[in-house]
Amino acid sequence: MCNKNGVEWSIRVSDGSSMALEPEHTHGVMRLWDRLTSLVVRFVMRVWMFLKKAWDLGVDDPRKFFHCLKVGVALMVVSLFYYMRPLYDGVGGSAIWAVMTVVVVFEYTVGGTLYKCLNRICATFLAGFLALGIHWIASHTGHQFEPYIMGISLFILASATTFSRFIPVVKARYDYGCTIFILTYSLVSVSGYRVDHLLHMAHERLSTIIIGTCLCIITSMVVFPVWAGLELHLLVPRNMDKLAKSLDCCVADYFGDGDEETKKSLQGYKCVLNSKASEESMANFARWEPAHWRFNFRHPWKNYLKIGASSRSCAYCIETLTSCLASKNQVPESIKNHLESACMNLSSSSSNVIRELATSVSTMTRSVKMNMAVKDMKNAVKELQNDLKSLSDLLIQPNDREEKNEPKDITIMPLLDVIPLVSFASLLIETASRIEENMMKAVEELAESAQFKQPEDEVKLKKNQTANKIVSDEENAIALQRV
Amino acid sequence: MCNKNGVEWSIRVSDGSSMALEPEHTHGVMRLWDRLTSLVVRFVMRVWMFLKKAWDLGVDDPRKFFHCLKVGVALMVVSLFYYMRPLYDGVGGSAIWAVMTVVVVFEYTVGGTLYKCLNRICATFLAGFLALGIHWIASHTGHQFEPYIMGISLFILASATTFSRFIPVVKARYDYGCTIFILTYSLVSVSGYRVDHLLHMAHERLSTIIIGTCLCIITSMVVFPVWAGLELHLLVPRNMDKLAKSLDCCVADYFGDGDEETKKSLQGYKCVLNSKASEESMANFARWEPAHWRFNFRHPWKNYLKIGASSRSCAYCIETLTSCLASKNQVPESIKNHLESACMNLSSSSSNVIRELATSVSTMTRSVKMNMAVKDMKNAVKELQNDLKSLSDLLIQPNDREEKNEPKDITIMPLLDVIPLVSFASLLIETASRIEENMMKAVEELAESAQFKQPEDEVKLKKNQTANKIVSDEENAIALQRV
Repeated sequence: MCNKNGVEWSIRVSDGSSMALEPEHTHGVMRLWDRLTSLVVRFVMRVWMFLKKAWDLGVDDPRKFFHCLKVGVALMVVSLFYYMRPLYDGVGGSAIWAVMTVVVVFEYTVGGTLYKCLNRICATFLAGFLALGIHWIASHTGHQFEPYIMGISLFILASATTFSRFIPVVKARYDYGCTIFILTYSLVSVSGYRVDHLLHMAHERLSTIIIGTCLCIITSMVVFPVWAGLELHLLVPRNMDKLAKSLDCCVADYFGDGDEETKKSLQGYKCVLNSKASEESMANFARWEPAHWRFNFRHPWKNYLKIGASSRSCAYCIETLTSCLASKNQVPESIKNHLESACMNLSSSSSNVIRELATSVSTMTRSVKMNMAVKDMKNAVKELQNDLKSLSDLLIQPNDREEKNEPKDITIMPLLDVIPLVSFASLLIETASRIEENMMKAVEELAESAQFKQPEDEVKLKKNQTANKIVSDEENAIALQRV
Repeated sequence: MCNKNGVEWSIRVSDGSSMALEPEHTHGVMRLWDRLTSLVVRFVMRVWMFLKKAWDLGVDDPRKFFHCLKVGVALMVVSLFYYMRPLYDGVGGSAIWAVMTVVVVFEYTVGGTLYKCLNRICATFLAGFLALGIHWIASHTGHQFEPYIMGISLFILASATTFSRFIPVVKARYDYGCTIFILTYSLVSVSGYRVDHLLHMAHERLSTIIIGTCLCIITSMVVFPVWAGLELHLLVPRNMDKLAKSLDCCVADYFGDGDEETKKSLQGYKCVLNSKASEESMANFARWEPAHWRFNFRHPWKNYLKIGASSRSCAYCIETLTSCLASKNQVPESIKNHLESACMNLSSSSSNVIRELATSVSTMTRSVKMNMAVKDMKNAVKELQNDLKSLSDLLIQPNDREEKNEPKDITIMPLLDVIPLVSFASLLIETASRIEENMMKAVEELAESAQFKQPEDEVKLKKNQTANKIVSDEENAIALQRV
């Protein structure tokens, strides 16, 4: 009967009209109290929800917790330079640069940390030497020209470097280096005008930056390392598996076998649609990483992006397939039954090929069962095409039937009723052709350039299966991770 | 006759065999010279191509040049603090922080700059006060405990802040602030143990950061500002126009009217597929921007993302449509002719609706022609469905024809030949339904929350058309820009 947010209190009388109550003082206080408590409760609930979400995030992937601890430890260690007098006397007030380096450079993946470290060191060296050189030239032209020369060189270099950041290649690989280049150049050139011991300062800055970066690199590579390359290597086949699952569930749902579980797994293709950005950033970081796990330094990370793109092209098809689910009830059951087995066959053989490709990628082994799986898929396509061909027999025109005196209880099918099913089937065929043309080709390219192992005989085959098992166990362990 | 990269020289003799030449000393020198020149030429060519590409990038969007000049100017101005003695005496050695701030904080868009500036200032304040407070507490517990208290608090805060960066909301809005928070806290707490004039230092650091950020904000907002909000506002309808164009071209190409120009415009939907990341970053930056152009401070930028998502859902359909182009020649001409006009009609009316929606978004005006356009689209869908229904008449079975003694020159159509066209048509219908269900709804939501103008009468309508023209001129001017 009371409106908590409102300004008016009213009692609804039995005849439907309402009677306004005079607001009283006690009521006002009570209301204020109510509001305050509800506000506090809501605030606490919100904070609680936020913390719970954050906690779940960490529980899903404990490596995130480890990362935070790693950052904390690295910062503690670097602040020792300040707390311990001997070290402090060694590098002096510049120790602050070491702290700064750790804060700015430490990233979640080893590749990310290396990218930032190497960019930082190279850019600092380059800019430092350039600034010292130009400072030397400027100081020989006379004191009154010095600020002009330094200012103009700063303007030109800063503008040019800023512009280079718009170039995609530079943006992807040297963006952080560009910032550090401008930063160091301006710091050195500007301080050069005031600080006398310029070389001493440059030496201190460089050495502290190197201390900071080394600490970061060691911490991120030794303590629970998260390799961007391995992440990418696991993400791509995991996405392919999701795609296979989606395809299966979509067809199962269409032919009426869909429960809640199916509907949930059906959404898997959306992960594939949205994973472009994370795949690209992982590939970018992976190229900085040294040899690890089974990857060489120059592992063809670009090919993973190609496989990702081919997965997305299949995902587009599946996205369109799912929109057919809305019209699944329009199609007469008899026609559905006519095509059901062929469609199910095609979807299961297609998803089988995808899974086979995913296993091949994740184990880095050429699959022995691949040719068989592809053959199955091609046969399933043919079978579905044949079933579609024979569909015309079911589409007998009304007047024909009467002429032929066929029993009336055979339902008459107008073409329009069949169209949703026909387009569903042809989308399935299109998906299969994309798997064959795009995905298989992309995986084949990766297999070529990464020199996937050849399973030669039964013994080797068995070995690989054990390897598969190990990898899939490993995958399961690491799998709980942001998409 | 000579293989430039090879190790062997040979002369092909007329009988087809080849005769090896004894490598001579002069040859070796010549070869080395050849290689060297070709290497230099290749290097110069590469650098030249790189520079040309960079130049084209700038010519395409001259605002990128302006941005670089702006950064240069801001850096020049801030380095005046060093070169001019009175200013130097004012803020002392900390002037370096002002330079640093400018380098790190200056972004391409106003929103990006504001995001970084506000994050930097707030995080510095917060971390500074916290560090001073904890330092005060620690200094009252006795000198020997101080490093432990400071170290442990640093560890806890750094770990917690690092973890918060994994939370999507924090990542999107306060990522930079988190870095600066850790940085400032560690700098102040670590220096606090050594530097005596802590408050003085904190004051200097804050004031120089404020000088740096103010300079950046003023430069980026006053001199040729690039507003992230306006960029997003232009990008979304431009993508919709590309989508409309793609749809038209796809259908035109299917029915044989495709020339080179059409094939090029057909690819427009790919921009839509890939624009998710840039839309999201623009929306993120736009929320920091003050009122500008026709946008309030709290303009509903999220709705633009929804429109973008709906555009992508149409783009998935169009992507699948384009794969039908491969099979366009399998369909018999007579069947094609039967559906051509209806398909063309549907595609032109659909793209008309998309264009109308795009105009409505870009002019922020409800369209008067919208209802008409949607009605046209719905009619076109019905027309196509009717044509599909009547398609069965063309699919007469062979034995029927013989019975009815129809002329033999009417070609007999098996159902299988028609399937590609049928699925093409049903994809077109699906596209239309997505436009109606997703895109129109998203634009309607934006129109509600951004309070689009109502065109009430003819006069107002005319005014709007002029406005449209102005906007489209403006768009053309700014249009040449990265996707």
